[in-house]
Amino acid sequence: MNDPDFVMHERLLADTHVLGDYPRSRVLLHRNATIPWFMLVPRCNETEFLDLPEEFRSELLAEASRTGDFVRDHFGSSKINFAAIGNIVPQMHLHVVGRNPDDACWPAPVWGSSIEVNNFTQAELDDVIARMQEACGLR
Amino acid sequence: MNDPDFVMHERLLADTHVLGDYPRSRVLLHRNATIPWFMLVPRCNETEFLDLPEEFRSELLAEASRTGDFVRDHFGSSKINFAAIGNIVPQMHLHVVGRNPDDACWPAPVWGSSIEVNNFTQAELDDVIARMQEACGLR
Repeated sequence: MNDPDFVMHERLLADTHVLGDYPRSRVLLHRNATIPWFMLVPRCNETEFLDLPEEFRSELLAEASRTGDFVRDHFGSSKINFAAIGNIVPQMHLHVVGRNPDDACWPAPVWGSSIEVNNFTQAELDDVIARMQEACGLR
Repeated sequence: MNDPDFVMHERLLADTHVLGDYPRSRVLLHRNATIPWFMLVPRCNETEFLDLPEEFRSELLAEASRTGDFVRDHFGSSKINFAAIGNIVPQMHLHVVGRNPDDACWPAPVWGSSIEVNNFTQAELDDVIARMQEACGLR
């Protein structure tokens, strides 16, 4: 990654694959491949999404929006669930989750739900990264 | 309310008290008083939060931010959970939920959780409305 000083909470690192960086956030993908569950970790010191300065929040949401578009295109999700929760991990992280009426968790939210566990192959991860670099400007 | 043409989904009406209006959204309070659980229903036709035009989204988030500040001040919440989910109710609604490590649901999110049910008294509702009119510009 191009930002060696950016420290991530160990729980986020344990639960996700690091896909790359946007200007305002690092992009993670939950290790459970059953649901396309992305997270953006913004480069900021605030812990509350609603406390972010307006300009930074707009730029961050543009990155989340690009991610949501990618999730719909790549995974065929019909609905994007967006959330800033942080009850367990204090470092701010925004959930961008692709949902479908036929997915393993519908209509329940993914947070707090028990979802069957599947893993991404390395080829699948490499493909997601390559496509996000092309479609979203991920670095 | 000052906007008679604003139609709300029946499930939202069934689950909440209508508190009033901001310029960009109607403010609701979940009937279950156990957790301070507010919702903002924006005046827009989009169903996806990440698809909103940037300027409208910024104005809407300023209203959500004012609401979050109020929740912290009035209910003593230490954490605000923010989410746009909409798997069950398609009309866009933004959750602004006040959380505390000693609340009835912590650290689980409120969505999909079973929380003991308590009711607001009319005096409590009137007090919330009056304070939000003063502190947040609610009409």
